[in-house]
Amino acid sequence: MLGSKIYKIIVLVVSIITLGITGYMWLSNYSFVDALYMTVITVTTVGFGEVKPFTPEEKIFTIFLILTSITVFGYAVSAFSEFLVSGKLFDHFKHK
Amino acid sequence: MLGSKIYKIIVLVVSIITLGITGYMWLSNYSFVDALYMTVITVTTVGFGEVKPFTPEEKIFTIFLILTSITVFGYAVSAFSEFLVSGKLFDHFKHK
Amino acid sequence: MLGSKIYKIIVLVVSIITLGITGYMWLSNYSFVDALYMTVITVTTVGFGEVKPFTPEEKIFTIFLILTSITVFGYAVSAFSEFLVSGKLFDHFKHK
Amino acid sequence: MLGSKIYKIIVLVVSIITLGITGYMWLSNYSFVDALYMTVITVTTVGFGEVKPFTPEEKIFTIFLILTSITVFGYAVSAFSEFLVSGKLFDHFKHK
Ligand SMILES: [K+]
Ligand SMILES: [K+]
Repeated sequence: MLGSKIYKIIVLVVSIITLGITGYMWLSNYSFVDALYMTVITVTTVGFGEVKPFTPEEKIFTIFLILTSITVFGYAVSAFSEFLVSGKLFDHFKHK
Repeated sequence: MLGSKIYKIIVLVVSIITLGITGYMWLSNYSFVDALYMTVITVTTVGFGEVKPFTPEEKIFTIFLILTSITVFGYAVSAFSEFLVSGKLFDHFKHK
Repeated sequence: MLGSKIYKIIVLVVSIITLGITGYMWLSNYSFVDALYMTVITVTTVGFGEVKPFTPEEKIFTIFLILTSITVFGYAVSAFSEFLVSGKLFDHFKHK
Repeated sequence: MLGSKIYKIIVLVVSIITLGITGYMWLSNYSFVDALYMTVITVTTVGFGEVKPFTPEEKIFTIFLILTSITVFGYAVSAFSEFLVSGKLFDHFKHK
């Protein structure tokens, strides 16, 4: 059950990076490196700044990318906490 | 009790986004997309930069928006932790 | 014991904001609003950008401010976790 | 066991800062202060912006630095949680 959650998180993270790269290459004519760079600094909230100033369409896409990645990150933290609370902690009680 | 907390968090998040959009449209004459974009990059701490350079009034509003959203985020994390600790964990003891 | 920790966190947060305002007003001749704005976007990691480009001295001060606020934030998270784990959780066992 | 984890985290954090300083001094001809500043604002996700606009090579290095520091930070949070759950909490049960 936990294994499948970790698998889901990996799939979701790869999907978000692919979504970001595709979006910035297609909407903004960014090079692959620029699109990957823009995606990584967005989803990690480093946020150095826009490689080129954004059009309204690019702003809407970036809002969507941020909200999607926060949701996935929330899911990852939740799955990790569940692992700590229901997995490891439970083991401690068994070995008491 | 937990359900009402999740409901409160949703109301608070929607209020903050509405506050941000209203503030940036009214104080800065931003378009709706610019105001939403500025609000989302502020409250998520992505922080790409100011769409247009801020006046002192806009800086004070942004400080207020950041401090408000941190408080709400703190409340959300606290409510989530309470769910993990008092909700799920407690169930494990009942089923032991 | 917990009350004194919350008191310590409040004192530390107020100290960091005072340190930031003093530093940016004194080193960079920022106005009070600019110094407060720079401090808030730094310690909350929003990081919109430098109000005016930084000199090497201002960069060293900012590095010091970031590292100080991360330490305080780490202490706050640690105190909060201790509250959750040793405080509330323990109560649940007592009422079982 | 926990002590060795804290030691590992310190070694990893020092390694990342050394990596960042070396990378930015060597790739970008940054001064020591600029390279340290760039590294600190990157790994803490403050992200004020690039000291000088990045070349594609510098963008790839920065992506690598961000992903490395997130992994180390994840390890640090995990080790800290383990301390809270398996260390302190366990003590509470012993003293019950
Ligand atoms: K920024
Ligand atoms: K940021």
